[in-house]
Amino acid sequence: VTLDVKPIGIIRTPLTSSMDCKVQSKWSDVVGEAQVSPEYLEGLESLSSFSHIILLYWFHRAKDSMMRVRPYLDERERGLFSTRVPSRPNPIGLSTVKLLRIDGARIIFEGADMFDESPLIDIKPFVPQFDNRLDATSGWLSKSLENPDCTFRADERFEE
Amino acid sequence: VTLDVKPIGIIRTPLTSSMDCKVQSKWSDVVGEAQVSPEYLEGLESLSSFSHIILLYWFHRAKDSMMRVRPYLDERERGLFSTRVPSRPNPIGLSTVKLLRIDGARIIFEGADMFDESPLIDIKPFVPQFDNRLDATSGWLSKSLENPDCTFRADERFEE
Repeated sequence: VTLDVKPIGIIRTPLTSSMDCKVQSKWSDVVGEAQVSPEYLEGLESLSSFSHIILLYWFHRAKDSMMRVRPYLDERERGLFSTRVPSRPNPIGLSTVKLLRIDGARIIFEGADMFDESPLIDIKPFVPQFDNRLDATSGWLSKSLENPDCTFRADERFEE
Repeated sequence: VTLDVKPIGIIRTPLTSSMDCKVQSKWSDVVGEAQVSPEYLEGLESLSSFSHIILLYWFHRAKDSMMRVRPYLDERERGLFSTRVPSRPNPIGLSTVKLLRIDGARIIFEGADMFDESPLIDIKPFVPQFDNRLDATSGWLSKSLENPDCTFRADERFEE
């Protein structure tokens, strides 16, 4: 069985090289732009009432997936699904970003952590009552999370 | 351009009819099971160290998408992308669920809000430092969020 995903637009960011510092969107102040194709423009109505949105996109530069990976800040291998590494069986990225403004079919946001020209797959409103989990714990990542910086992103080595 | 998504497993839940009460996963105490295909089993290693996980799955019973929809608890139409309605150009669902235990290739979780037999697309660890947004606001949904109950889920009418 194969399910067809069709891009609904494209994400433009200044991140083009694997040398670019890509932290998770939460610590990124990089501005990006999600450009929605004209046929989906009407679907953006009311979106600007939210402070944050969830972007789903295709990790178009991800390598083939492996079930065991060595994340950036860990000394040992981990199961792929316990990481956010882009090289997944279905390389779909999820970033919650801060909505700055919507100008026609262009959604300008802060918190870019994806490569330029990532195909846009979906936009969902971030609803704190649905999406926050204040009691959640960070598993094996806990130790690596104390000093978020450029070396923090677990998946830099898995795109090029 | 079409991107191919291949299911990595299937999600089993007791939710089979549109009459089932499906609230968002945060208020659901329904137990479900994500069953991963054998070739992905190794990818689950270390996942059990997290308290919550993000499931991406296919809304396999969603109807065709429309750019303007009338969400359940609102009197007026909204742009599709300002809602969590399943009938989307790419009908990909996102649920953050509470991990109860992993038994081989079976991930038992609390917070099921998806239909039985939803194709599983991806599993990501929920990392509070990445995924929570304590400063987020709820846009047009704010008014509807005061009494979450069965009527709360905005998208019941869009699956059958």
